[in-house]
Amino acid sequence: MSAPTPSARVTLAELAAEAGVSLSTISKVLNGRTDVSRTTRAKVEVLLDEHGYQRRGTRTPKSRLLELVFHELESAWALEIIRGVENVASENGLSVVLTESGTRHAPGPEWVEGVIARQPAGVVLVFADLPQDCRRQLESRSIPFAIIDPAGDPAPDVPSVGSANWAGGMMATRHLIDLGHTRIAAITGPADVMCSLARIDGYRTALNAAGLPFDRQLIRYGNFHVDGGRDNALELLRQPNRPTAIFAGSDIQALGVLDAARQLGISVPGDLSIVGYDDLQVARWSSPALTTVHQPLIEMAEEAARMVLMLREGEEPNNLRLDLATSLVVRQSTGPAPDAVRPLAAVG
Amino acid sequence: MSAPTPSARVTLAELAAEAGVSLSTISKVLNGRTDVSRTTRAKVEVLLDEHGYQRRGTRTPKSRLLELVFHELESAWALEIIRGVENVASENGLSVVLTESGTRHAPGPEWVEGVIARQPAGVVLVFADLPQDCRRQLESRSIPFAIIDPAGDPAPDVPSVGSANWAGGMMATRHLIDLGHTRIAAITGPADVMCSLARIDGYRTALNAAGLPFDRQLIRYGNFHVDGGRDNALELLRQPNRPTAIFAGSDIQALGVLDAARQLGISVPGDLSIVGYDDLQVARWSSPALTTVHQPLIEMAEEAARMVLMLREGEEPNNLRLDLATSLVVRQSTGPAPDAVRPLAAVG
Repeated sequence: MSAPTPSARVTLAELAAEAGVSLSTISKVLNGRTDVSRTTRAKVEVLLDEHGYQRRGTRTPKSRLLELVFHELESAWALEIIRGVENVASENGLSVVLTESGTRHAPGPEWVEGVIARQPAGVVLVFADLPQDCRRQLESRSIPFAIIDPAGDPAPDVPSVGSANWAGGMMATRHLIDLGHTRIAAITGPADVMCSLARIDGYRTALNAAGLPFDRQLIRYGNFHVDGGRDNALELLRQPNRPTAIFAGSDIQALGVLDAARQLGISVPGDLSIVGYDDLQVARWSSPALTTVHQPLIEMAEEAARMVLMLREGEEPNNLRLDLATSLVVRQSTGPAPDAVRPLAAVG
Repeated sequence: MSAPTPSARVTLAELAAEAGVSLSTISKVLNGRTDVSRTTRAKVEVLLDEHGYQRRGTRTPKSRLLELVFHELESAWALEIIRGVENVASENGLSVVLTESGTRHAPGPEWVEGVIARQPAGVVLVFADLPQDCRRQLESRSIPFAIIDPAGDPAPDVPSVGSANWAGGMMATRHLIDLGHTRIAAITGPADVMCSLARIDGYRTALNAAGLPFDRQLIRYGNFHVDGGRDNALELLRQPNRPTAIFAGSDIQALGVLDAARQLGISVPGDLSIVGYDDLQVARWSSPALTTVHQPLIEMAEEAARMVLMLREGEEPNNLRLDLATSLVVRQSTGPAPDAVRPLAAVG
């Protein structure tokens, strides 16, 4: 993408002439009005994009809305993220507009049209990345945005907030090593999700630092849900030389590991230690309560919202990409490595 | 409250004269503008209220916002309710504005001012009831509203949606009786919350119908959190003639009961059956998965949102108060009553 130099900025009148439409039509497209034909709108969008048009000096200072858009409200993360954005919004006298739209990768086109018509103060997106056309549509209207990205790998020039996944994997594994465990399995998310790779690298580095071997048989990739934890744990725990500790990719997965242990009659933490990831409320509610890696979801959402409001004021954030620290929270699901692994009784 | 007859409706000019302010000041107060002094605003609000003023024919048909206001976003219910309101909003091309405000009983005054300025299509509130002044402020601006009320006891003339708590208590208890349990304890919410009383009445009726005695010693009132379940369960289970089943007031409380059982070495469901309430995601995630009473929170939120949109169109809902059905979901935490209660080992 080559942005035009400021002196080369095109005027709306020039755009109108090039598109063969009236100035008012251009203005309607910019403001998300629906009384413009779909083809005309598409033509104008292409020209806005080609010329790297960006509205200047016409910000609507009155907008009291901050947009938050998710692809999946039922995610276990959703509530924490909503709370963080809501905190910053209310500090600034703004209201949060919440939308569920699109896929893991991008919001749907109907959302983009809606947000242009609403002209919010800014947009916080919970997506792995933002497609180029969606990004250009926001930029051409001077609507600032930031991505909250606990999992993905957004483009480096997109404002985004994540957390320290590699360090999280390292801390969890070091904690288990410190407790005397030497056969430590890891169940993580899908292999194409960046956070999974980063955490497994942290896990490997902790093993290396302790002089312990990295055994591929002890690594499992699966979904972040309960069954992803349960099914992989059942396989791992039925091995003759089973692990004495499992580092799970999410608290929800860790609940699945707990269930697998219960089904097999393996006591936690006596015979098996479990570390979760995220530190959702459910980690405290679990029995035993989960030792887990705290992912600061509320703070991540707060930072993303602050970033948007800075951009709104015309200030550049010092860093476009921010990773907040993770930390280990030790509760009841981890304990000293057992002296010997008892053979499984014929159950489950 | 005596509403004036339609013929007695006051005009804005009359109100202005009575308040000794200009017509434009009256209009500013009605539209939530902030450039009016606090005293003037208060004076005008009192007059609007006294005259039962209600804006007519000036609805802003363009409003694409539906407001949702909570006193506590961290409630385990919050996400389900957001999802329900979001479903109906997106079906109708509306966006949801989310606010956390006030106490369990009413939203804060800053929210009321904000909502008047935003002029949304309508408001869904998650509160036990709506104070008269807040209600009047919404009515005088013709902003329709409905309450989602899983716990409280709103005034009968306030549009609200709840669920069948009495039937929920009855079904849970009957399920345990059908499994052969005769000593069934109940842990429920605070005694001043209507849903707690309704569920305990349902519990008692199920016992009566089966010819079982109602034993006050087996009823506990506590908070809806994990510790409310754990602490009460520890007391109940340490009794010499301990119950073989516990009906909890929420899934979260039920997790506390599970933890108490684990601490005391009592197996679930072998020696103790547990029934939760709400059917949140965590009920499925728990190990063993919880038998629970399904409270249709998503559908309740959808109904409240639909009620608001009907009122918006000038239609009267058939019923101002709607209780949706609860249902029993049987999972792994309940089983046949044990033949005999084994004495507790000296643990915990």
